Amino acid sequence: MKKSILALALMGAFSTAAFAQSSVVIYGTLDAGITKTTNSANTALSEGKRDNNKLGFRGVEDLGSGLKALFQLEIRFEPDTGVIEGGNRPLFQGQSRVGLQGDFGTVRLGRALTALQETSTLFEPWSGMPNQAGFQTDIMVAGYRAALPGSGSDPLGVAGNSGNRFANGLWYNTPVYNGFQLNLNIASKENNGFTTALVGRGTPAAPQYPVGSLAGAYPYSVSATYSAPGTLPQYSFYVGTERNATEVKWHSVGAYYRPIPALKLMASYGKQDLGHIAATNDTITAWMLGANYTYGPGMFRFGYGQKNPDGQVKTKQISVGYDYNLSPRTYLYLDLSQKKIPLATSPATSDVNQNHYALGIHHNF
Amino acid sequence: MKKSILALALMGAFSTAAFAQSSVVIYGTLDAGITKTTNSANTALSEGKRDNNKLGFRGVEDLGSGLKALFQLEIRFEPDTGVIEGGNRPLFQGQSRVGLQGDFGTVRLGRALTALQETSTLFEPWSGMPNQAGFQTDIMVAGYRAALPGSGSDPLGVAGNSGNRFANGLWYNTPVYNGFQLNLNIASKENNGFTTALVGRGTPAAPQYPVGSLAGAYPYSVSATYSAPGTLPQYSFYVGTERNATEVKWHSVGAYYRPIPALKLMASYGKQDLGHIAATNDTITAWMLGANYTYGPGMFRFGYGQKNPDGQVKTKQISVGYDYNLSPRTYLYLDLSQKKIPLATSPATSDVNQNHYALGIHHNF
Amino acid sequence: MKKSILALALMGAFSTAAFAQSSVVIYGTLDAGITKTTNSANTALSEGKRDNNKLGFRGVEDLGSGLKALFQLEIRFEPDTGVIEGGNRPLFQGQSRVGLQGDFGTVRLGRALTALQETSTLFEPWSGMPNQAGFQTDIMVAGYRAALPGSGSDPLGVAGNSGNRFANGLWYNTPVYNGFQLNLNIASKENNGFTTALVGRGTPAAPQYPVGSLAGAYPYSVSATYSAPGTLPQYSFYVGTERNATEVKWHSVGAYYRPIPALKLMASYGKQDLGHIAATNDTITAWMLGANYTYGPGMFRFGYGQKNPDGQVKTKQISVGYDYNLSPRTYLYLDLSQKKIPLATSPATSDVNQNHYALGIHHNF
Repeated sequence: MKKSILALALMGAFSTAAFAQSSVVIYGTLDAGITKTTNSANTALSEGKRDNNKLGFRGVEDLGSGLKALFQLEIRFEPDTGVIEGGNRPLFQGQSRVGLQGDFGTVRLGRALTALQETSTLFEPWSGMPNQAGFQTDIMVAGYRAALPGSGSDPLGVAGNSGNRFANGLWYNTPVYNGFQLNLNIASKENNGFTTALVGRGTPAAPQYPVGSLAGAYPYSVSATYSAPGTLPQYSFYVGTERNATEVKWHSVGAYYRPIPALKLMASYGKQDLGHIAATNDTITAWMLGANYTYGPGMFRFGYGQKNPDGQVKTKQISVGYDYNLSPRTYLYLDLSQKKIPLATSPATSDVNQNHYALGIHHNF
Repeated sequence: MKKSILALALMGAFSTAAFAQSSVVIYGTLDAGITKTTNSANTALSEGKRDNNKLGFRGVEDLGSGLKALFQLEIRFEPDTGVIEGGNRPLFQGQSRVGLQGDFGTVRLGRALTALQETSTLFEPWSGMPNQAGFQTDIMVAGYRAALPGSGSDPLGVAGNSGNRFANGLWYNTPVYNGFQLNLNIASKENNGFTTALVGRGTPAAPQYPVGSLAGAYPYSVSATYSAPGTLPQYSFYVGTERNATEVKWHSVGAYYRPIPALKLMASYGKQDLGHIAATNDTITAWMLGANYTYGPGMFRFGYGQKNPDGQVKTKQISVGYDYNLSPRTYLYLDLSQKKIPLATSPATSDVNQNHYALGIHHNF
Repeated sequence: MKKSILALALMGAFSTAAFAQSSVVIYGTLDAGITKTTNSANTALSEGKRDNNKLGFRGVEDLGSGLKALFQLEIRFEPDTGVIEGGNRPLFQGQSRVGLQGDFGTVRLGRALTALQETSTLFEPWSGMPNQAGFQTDIMVAGYRAALPGSGSDPLGVAGNSGNRFANGLWYNTPVYNGFQLNLNIASKENNGFTTALVGRGTPAAPQYPVGSLAGAYPYSVSATYSAPGTLPQYSFYVGTERNATEVKWHSVGAYYRPIPALKLMASYGKQDLGHIAATNDTITAWMLGANYTYGPGMFRFGYGQKNPDGQVKTKQISVGYDYNLSPRTYLYLDLSQKKIPLATSPATSDVNQNHYALGIHHNF
């Protein structure tokens, strides 16, 4: 049988994949546990998660001369119901990026955590895992004023979009010089599919960002890290700043210190400036102290933090967690956390304790 | 170039995946065929399926001392239109589970077929495949009263959720002792995202399960199996019982008998009790007889069954199928089925014949 | 521990996958770039793509005697926002097909590009990639009258369905005889999930295709190719014809000529007949000339084309592109295109220039 045009075209496609196959890595995380949170929307014994659940595909192609092509695609999902994360987030909520890496650093295009967000997870005692015991989502990044439209990282994004990513982004990470690294991230002014006008400092009749608005200024996110080279004590710090499509700004600094291999101490401070879209209560500050302590096959996690919205009731949180490692890939965990949150009145004048318990399994593949 | 904090973090992620890679198995099923069903909503010659279409990812990690970590994620889809199963089901409709296996048995968390449902597929002549010729979905599990909201396994679930799974579930399978095995399954009382109130025994103004309701009692599903050890004749039976979040109950028993290797005879009986949500016609019973007969490269499937809703017109079904194996992974099939169903009047007082023809290909990968 | 019924069943499933694993190929494309298009809905500097972004799974099973089983599943997505293609297309928008291949040719069932569409991509200077600089989607297939419901290949399909695929399709590709190959493709008359009536030549009160309509005639798509065997000059041509579920028809012819290995010259002509659903302006003709020229590690792409809707303003397009290959799998690209399009008035009486610039990276894995 002679080869047809179509057959040749198909073979081309097949052979492309054949040599490419070796470079695709499938990875992921399944994390599910039993949780209970008092004084919350759901106080019943529930099935939940401590970490994001992921199914990812990535690869690195060596282009020669130190140059590499990189890609990464990461599905996020809810293990207890099988739906995509949050039920309505983008399929590749984790990230979808492609780019090049070389002596000049790494350049990538697509959608992912902002530079500030990605860096900050290294300075948080729950490793940035977005759960009630951890400090990443509510405290450490200066408390997204979640109830206020426009206060997340991608305010002109699709429904369900998370508050800490840029769509239409460009990422540049420098190489490391004497322990220093710079991570730069900008995004286009595109409207990424939001369908509800953002009132902001306008009125419902004349919203600040009507449907179809583009950003008035380019969103950016920058972080700089320094990591002390060599032996113990090991330490590192970062500073970061970010501006989203509605010109809400974050500023944060953090550090960790490792006096002995088993102990990592962390501290961070952050501030969110909502002045561009909020006429009142437009500043939120927050700080956090944390520690990780490894003992035998286990690791303890500790944290204490506060969020202080300008002119409103503070949020205070104390948490302790324990990971029991069954292998480098699999652990069981226990989290206990108490959070003093504003009562759901507006303006909140008092607070209430939210106790959180979680027991689960975390498996990487 | 020295390693940066971020680079180390990324490397950590990469290396995790690198050693994990060997354990991820990609599997699936593509099944498509030409079908025709008389007296149905779609009587035209159509493209359909005999089996669920699947794309799955799973792995087993050996933790030492006989302990293993397990995960499984299974996408379901429609081959003829490329959409996810049913067009609106969860992405991982097949299952999303993670857990541990050891001498104590298997424990898993997540969402999957209930214990009763998973067991019952082994006693059905179409291997539990949910098509018009098979007996699993309409007859064998005592005829979910599909038109009645609240009558499936996950009545407080997301739109499109199937009627035979638990979300927020915990599964425990014992080891096998002298041929006996017990499969236990419970679920939390969580509302899994249903957005339409269930009237049930209430009224539209005061529904029995308003939006946001939690289950009043923990849903559970239990099955026990016995399989005769050793040589022919080989036989097995099971009993199972289940209660969903709206306290609808199923009870079923089944057996198979294999006098010679080529022949498997099956029988099962089931009952559904809808009394908690239905004031009238609250009991459905059903039974089924089936056989699989292997001859050369092919296998014949036979079945006859009845569903008897309390005080309403019976459903009677007779089916014959043939699989022609092209390999252990691929076969062609032909199904012929006649089903006497109630006319779509309420209450139905007479019935009509629904003839079903299907010719297709079933490919596992 | 003796093996349980369930354990045996699970093992069966596992072992199926174990030997199947070797046959699953994961492949894909990530393409992202910076674009700008004047006089368009979005004139801001944006992040976009030149090619479809894909994550696919496919396999071939050798059944012996020259017979093979084939499957292919292809996810499509937007790299800049992480959502599935277009935000609402089927999960496996690329294709979902299963079938057999042997001496008789290839037979497949499922959903994919129509025969005409798949063939035509080989005769287009941007390789059929659906972007503003290329000619495939707007010019070459005779300009789908996109604004007119019913004018795409699957008019009775789900929301977001693309205009060049058949759902519920059967594909047959003959082997190649003396350079000739025939590609046949039909689809069932099924309504594939469209939810908005098509007015067509009816009225809003009495639409030509009410919700739930089946096709009045079987949709089909046919292409025939001839490829000159042997050495240079190499040439090939095709003819194709297609009829969709609303009896809109396409007819097209194309050819390419390769006088030297580095140069491929292309020409094609097409016609769309919308008479079945449009009372006026029911014919569109189009033609295109193109070239690919390889020079060193790069390839230039050139094209000029016109679309001539009956009684309306023409569209004229001139484009030039450049691929700089970093490897056989990865290239950087630059596209420059000018398109004279009708002003958005109805009927359009004048035109406007749309300039398009794109700079990006294309990575296959």
